[in-house]
Order: sequence, then structure tokens, then C-alpha cells
Amino acid sequence: MSASTLKARRDAVLGAGTPLFYDEPVTIVRGRGVELWDDAGRRYVDMYNNVPCVGHAHPRVVAAMQAQAGTLNVHSRYLHEGIVDYAERLVAKHHDGIEAVVFTCTGTEANEVALMMARAATGGRGIICTDAAYHGNSAEVGKLTRVDAGRNQSGAEVRSIPFPQRYRPLPGASSDAALTGLYLDRVQAAIDAFAADGVPFAGMLVCSILANEGLPDIPVDFMPRAAEMVRAAGGVFIADEVQSGFCRTGTWWGYHRTGFAPDIVSMGKPMGNGLPLAGAAASRAIVDAFRRDHRYFNTFASSPLQAAVGAAVLDVLDDEALADNAERVGALLRDRLRALQARYPRMGDVRGHGLFCGVEWVSDPDARTPDRDGAAWVVNRLKERGFLISNAGALGNVLKIRPPLVFEASHAEEFLGAFEAVLEEVHGAG
Amino acid sequence: MSASTLKARRDAVLGAGTPLFYDEPVTIVRGRGVELWDDAGRRYVDMYNNVPCVGHAHPRVVAAMQAQAGTLNVHSRYLHEGIVDYAERLVAKHHDGIEAVVFTCTGTEANEVALMMARAATGGRGIICTDAAYHGNSAEVGKLTRVDAGRNQSGAEVRSIPFPQRYRPLPGASSDAALTGLYLDRVQAAIDAFAADGVPFAGMLVCSILANEGLPDIPVDFMPRAAEMVRAAGGVFIADEVQSGFCRTGTWWGYHRTGFAPDIVSMGKPMGNGLPLAGAAASRAIVDAFRRDHRYFNTFASSPLQAAVGAAVLDVLDDEALADNAERVGALLRDRLRALQARYPRMGDVRGHGLFCGVEWVSDPDARTPDRDGAAWVVNRLKERGFLISNAGALGNVLKIRPPLVFEASHAEEFLGAFEAVLEEVHGAG
Repeated sequence: MSASTLKARRDAVLGAGTPLFYDEPVTIVRGRGVELWDDAGRRYVDMYNNVPCVGHAHPRVVAAMQAQAGTLNVHSRYLHEGIVDYAERLVAKHHDGIEAVVFTCTGTEANEVALMMARAATGGRGIICTDAAYHGNSAEVGKLTRVDAGRNQSGAEVRSIPFPQRYRPLPGASSDAALTGLYLDRVQAAIDAFAADGVPFAGMLVCSILANEGLPDIPVDFMPRAAEMVRAAGGVFIADEVQSGFCRTGTWWGYHRTGFAPDIVSMGKPMGNGLPLAGAAASRAIVDAFRRDHRYFNTFASSPLQAAVGAAVLDVLDDEALADNAERVGALLRDRLRALQARYPRMGDVRGHGLFCGVEWVSDPDARTPDRDGAAWVVNRLKERGFLISNAGALGNVLKIRPPLVFEASHAEEFLGAFEAVLEEVHGAG
Repeated sequence: MSASTLKARRDAVLGAGTPLFYDEPVTIVRGRGVELWDDAGRRYVDMYNNVPCVGHAHPRVVAAMQAQAGTLNVHSRYLHEGIVDYAERLVAKHHDGIEAVVFTCTGTEANEVALMMARAATGGRGIICTDAAYHGNSAEVGKLTRVDAGRNQSGAEVRSIPFPQRYRPLPGASSDAALTGLYLDRVQAAIDAFAADGVPFAGMLVCSILANEGLPDIPVDFMPRAAEMVRAAGGVFIADEVQSGFCRTGTWWGYHRTGFAPDIVSMGKPMGNGLPLAGAAASRAIVDAFRRDHRYFNTFASSPLQAAVGAAVLDVLDDEALADNAERVGALLRDRLRALQARYPRMGDVRGHGLFCGVEWVSDPDARTPDRDGAAWVVNRLKERGFLISNAGALGNVLKIRPPLVFEASHAEEFLGAFEAVLEEVHGAG
């Protein structure tokens, strides 16, 4: 079937405007490791997908799924040792203050639970996020999506701050430490605005590496100091690890990279390598407060299937040393991208942690003028050359490079060759 | 490991008060068809679980899951024919007005989307539900949970009506038709209250068979006439088919039983036989309005894995003629339960459709006095005898009998023997 016929059927049965990647979408039929194949047998190197974190169709994960689905898969109101074992292993991957977990099926649901936990534990309602955040698609979590100053209206339960960054920083700071201070002032201003409005404060929710914001370099110590400030005001500090967790950054959790210890952690995407599996974890006191306030039950969550698949993902991440791989290959990739940046100035900035890289695409490097259309053009050209990435960030102009964690140096070399050819097309053309 | 040790570990790592069935919880380790086994090798007949609708560990569903997980499982922003095929097949199971579907992972998410669809299509906000409803665990959908008159406050976006029933009806009706009229008056009153409050009306959301309300006998024509009334006021009528769908009632959808054609349908639990799979379906115009208003994306939904497993469930439901089985065995079960009712008056009422039965447990049959504790006692006694049911309903006193759809007459006979023994214990004891 032609792509246009399939797209027409899709628009009819899933709704016009259902999101699709690329000007000419690809029909993907098979995957293995970091490779994908389309319906014409063409190979692509997957440099976008973080959900299949241990690689597409990993045999150990598939085997665990099959074995458990063929044995038992049922809701969580019976006892099941596999679920308890998995929960204990998962919690042990975090810092000591994380002691218990509530499983859900999606990251959106994990953030719903994280907000309920924060509000149950503090008795407050007000939540601070960034002005370029995305934490999920439900009505409640959607209130945290790209909240601009105009929507920080009096009485609202969500207020945003400009996301902390060095590339397009708030003006007026003479040093990185001073810049941190400017962003912290915004956190305090949001706390004060809640108090002035009579909205009791609950806490702050941020992605540990500000992935949707565009993976910025965060001014020094912003995260731990914001967490202190939030706690001093009676709130809890929530890390959204849906994108940054499970070895993506070359460490187990994104918060290890940005130097803080969250009170509540939400997790999702890579957690089940594609099986819907997510959750929110916290101290026992916070989780118990949540259980007291909410008769929360999630039919498909905390299932033997989720536990078996989630445990297999933990096994593979450890046995294949994928945090180390992410650290090593990610560092190589960024070094080589920075070498290209010196020759191709449309690459305004190269950033990231582990196997999560962002490249600012700009039309004027001195003015740092974001070029969203140019970034989309690069994404499409790379697709034509067999490499799947995307563009993202607050301004849509950041090339988002985030392959499965089994991405190797040889894949990086392949990609760099194609990327240089695309850079040459752009810069050669003037 | 002892159940008490496992429960202590579970409370510590999942939170104290995490829901469990039965006074002495069971540790289930294996399932097949309608049978479950505990860690001591003891067999139970599963008469509760609707999620594994085609039976626990159905080999065709497990094989489909394994084959697709071993081939490709990725998000929906690439084209994939399997997803479109499945969506088309699923939509075709509904009435002609249902043309497109938005997939999600859970029933809660399906109802989130259904509410967004209703509001996008109508421009309204106000939603009517029943006073004993449960449609999900998110903040927004949770606003529809057991809304009592005291919470129908001015300006609120959710208003409830007493759920329509014959067993404990609104007073003052001289006939079933008159009783329908009394409940319809409450629908109109809710519509009028929204208008008086200046809350633009969006529609009404109900389970097609009022499952959580306790599966009542619904006064004649209430559902189609309520739908007309809602549409006349500019709203849409939403059927929650999360419990009633996929042949449970002996027909494909619960709304076939209760005689109406919804504008929007939410689906969930049995849809993937345990794989997290759910969705909301509607006319193309409504789905397109939703897609216009919301940049909705759900990472794990609309995946090749969901489609392959969902399609396998549709195959088995049809190939094994499970709607017919539900109709036939369900009718047998209710006939036999009614025969017992004649001898054991604590069975206040026997109701249901297909393989979904409810038995009102009462302390005084003439006064119809609900006996929640007694119902829980019966549930626990049946568990001890190897039959897993639960108690539910607005007053918690309805025995909820809802086995996988491969439940056979022989299983019914087994159950009826055990149930009669428990009835004898109760009635014999006076």
C-alpha cells in the first residue's frame, strides 16, 4: 500500500491531524537494536527512540513478556511476589529518600499521581513548572504545558518560571552563579505569588534535565538550590524522569547529572521498553499520604506482566552496562559534533548528557537566532539519508538526538558522515 | 513466602492501604481460561475478571503479543498498517455513527479523551453523570466519581443525577414509564442548572449498563430518551463501555442491551486481554474537532503491539463466538440464581446481562435493606470454597459475578453448588 493511501485511511480512522513525523512519513515495519526497516526494506538508524531503551525487539525483554503473558497477567488486588520484587529493585536504584512506588501505565498517569502525592503530603495546591514544560496529556497535567506569563493569572494553581539556561539567559547576570540567582529569584517570586493569592504551595515539578525545554545547559547549582527553596516554603520537589531516567544520561537518573535529590520521582517511557509501564516513587510517608487521600487503583498497572517486563529491562540495562555505553558513546558523539560546530556555524550550540544530545540550529550564530524551519529541513534530509532524529525544544529549533542505549560508536560514525554531508549542503548553499 | 510476609513487603514498597481483595488475600501465580492457581497449587474459578475476556493466557493472544513485540513496537508517528487495520475493524463493530478512534492505554485516559472530545465538539463544559459513577482515577475524570447532591454546587462543571433503577426507585411513580419520566426530569434539571449557572453544556457520560452503580434494571427507554434530551440541549451522549463492551453483555456493546446509539464511546479493560489498551471513538467530525483542539499524543498508544494484541482479541471473540456463549451461559446462570433466590431471601434481586450478574444482598428482603458486610462475608466464604467474586454497587452490597467470557455451563454448575452451600450457612444460621 502506498504511503499516501495509508495516510488517508489513517486520517479517516484516527482523525485528521494525528501526529506524524517527517514531510514524507515513513512506514516502519521492523526493528532490531538501533535499526529500523521500512516497508520497502530500507534500513534506518534510529536516533530518536528512547522508549526501546535496550534496543528494538530485545530478545530478553520479548521472552520475559511472552513467559509472563503465558503464565499470569491480572490486576493487582491479589498478592504477587514478582510485583513486590520489581518495586523493591526499582526503588533501590534511587537515592535513600525514595522508598515506595505507585505504578501506572503512562507517564501522564505517573505525573497525575506525582501531583496527587505532592498535594496529599503538603496539603497545598500550587505547583511551579517551567514556561516550556510538557509533562503529559491529561486535563490536570496539561495545565503544566507551556504556561506563559500571561496565563500565570491570580488564583491559578500552576505558575511557571523561565526555564534556566545559559544559551539565551535572562539578562543582567555577570557570572554563572549570578545567573543562577536570577532564575532562583523567579522561583521565589512564584512561591510569593501563590502566598499572595492564598493558594497554599505544594511544590515544583521539572524534568531533571529539562528535555522538552531543549536540554539546556543549566546554570550551576540551580536544581539543588531550587529544591531547597521549595522545601523551605513547605513544598516538595518533583523530578520528572520520564525522559531522563533509566541510564539515558550515562547515569541511572537525570537528577544524578543535575545534582539534586528529589522528594518525588515520576518515571515512564523506557521503563518497559515499549510495554506501557510507568510510576511515581517517593518516601514511604509521602506514598502513605497519597494512599490515605486517594483510593487509587489502576486496572492494568502493578500487573505481573509489567513487573516481569520491567525487571527484564533492569537486568539488561545492568548486564549490558548501558549507562557506561551511554556515557562513552554520548561523549564521543558530542565531541565530534562540537568539532563539526567549529566548521558549521549554523550549529549554534551542542549540549546534552549521555545518549541525549541537543544541537541548536540557528540562522545567525552571533544573534543565536533560532531557525525552526531549518531544523525541520535538516531532520527531513537526515531521514532521506537513513537517520531518524527529530526537532524539539522551546523554540522547535533543537535537533533532538536520542537513540536506543545500545547505540555504538560505529553508528555514531555512520551518522556523523551523513550529518556532515547535510551540513555541507546547507553551508555550501550559503 | 507467607502471605503475611509478602503483604508486609507490599505495604512497605507500594504504600500502606494499596487495595487488596479478601480478608485473607490470595497469592495468585498462574492462570488459564477461567481458572487461577495460588502459590500452594490450589485452584480457583475466576468469576470476577473481565480484563482477560477471552480467558487467562489465551495462546492466540500470547502468540500475537510475542510475534509483534519481536518484530516492531514503536510510537505512532510513523505509518503502520496494522494500527489502521485494527482501528477500522474496531470502529466497524459499532453503529454507523462511530467512525474514528483515538487510542490510549487505560480506561481513565479513554474517558479523559472522551471528555475532551465532548467539549471540543460542543464548545461546552458541563457534564452530567450519575451519583454512583466511577469513570477513572485522574483528577479530571475523578470529578465524576460519586458526585452527591451536596457537591453539585453552583458553577461546577459536573452535576449528577440519581442513577435510574427499579429496585430502590425514586418515589412517586405509578408505572415503569412514569419512573423513567422521574429520572428524565432529573436529567433536564441538571441541564437547566448548568444553564442557570452560565456553564455551557457539553453532554452526559454514563456506563451503558451502569455497572459501578450496581448493574440496576434501568426503567424502560431511559437511555435513548436521556440521549435525545441531551442532544436537544446541544450536548453529546457518551457511553462508557470500559466494563460493558467486547461481548460482556451477550451483545458486542452494552448500549445494544440498553437501547441507544452513543455519540462517543470509551473502551478499555477487556480490549487487550490484559495489555494496556483503551480508546475513545466517535464520528469523524467529533474526532477531527478533538484533533484540532488538542495536540494529543500518547507515547505507548496506537502502537503496533496494541494493534496486534487488540486484533487477536477481536479474532478470538468472533471465532469462539463468545458473545453467544456469554448470552447462553449468562442466561443459565441468572435462571439458576433466581431459582435459589426463591429459597434464599437474602438474595434481594438478581440482575444482569450476559456474563455480568449482580445479586443484591439484603438483610431484610421486604425493606430491601442493603447488607454490605453480609455481601463481603459471602465473597470471602466463596473464595474459601475456590470461587473468586467481589462485591460492588452504590451501596457495596451487590455480589459482582463477571467471569472471563470462556466461562462454561459446567463452571456455572460448580459455582452454584458452592453458592448454595454458602446460602445454606447463612439462612440455616438464621
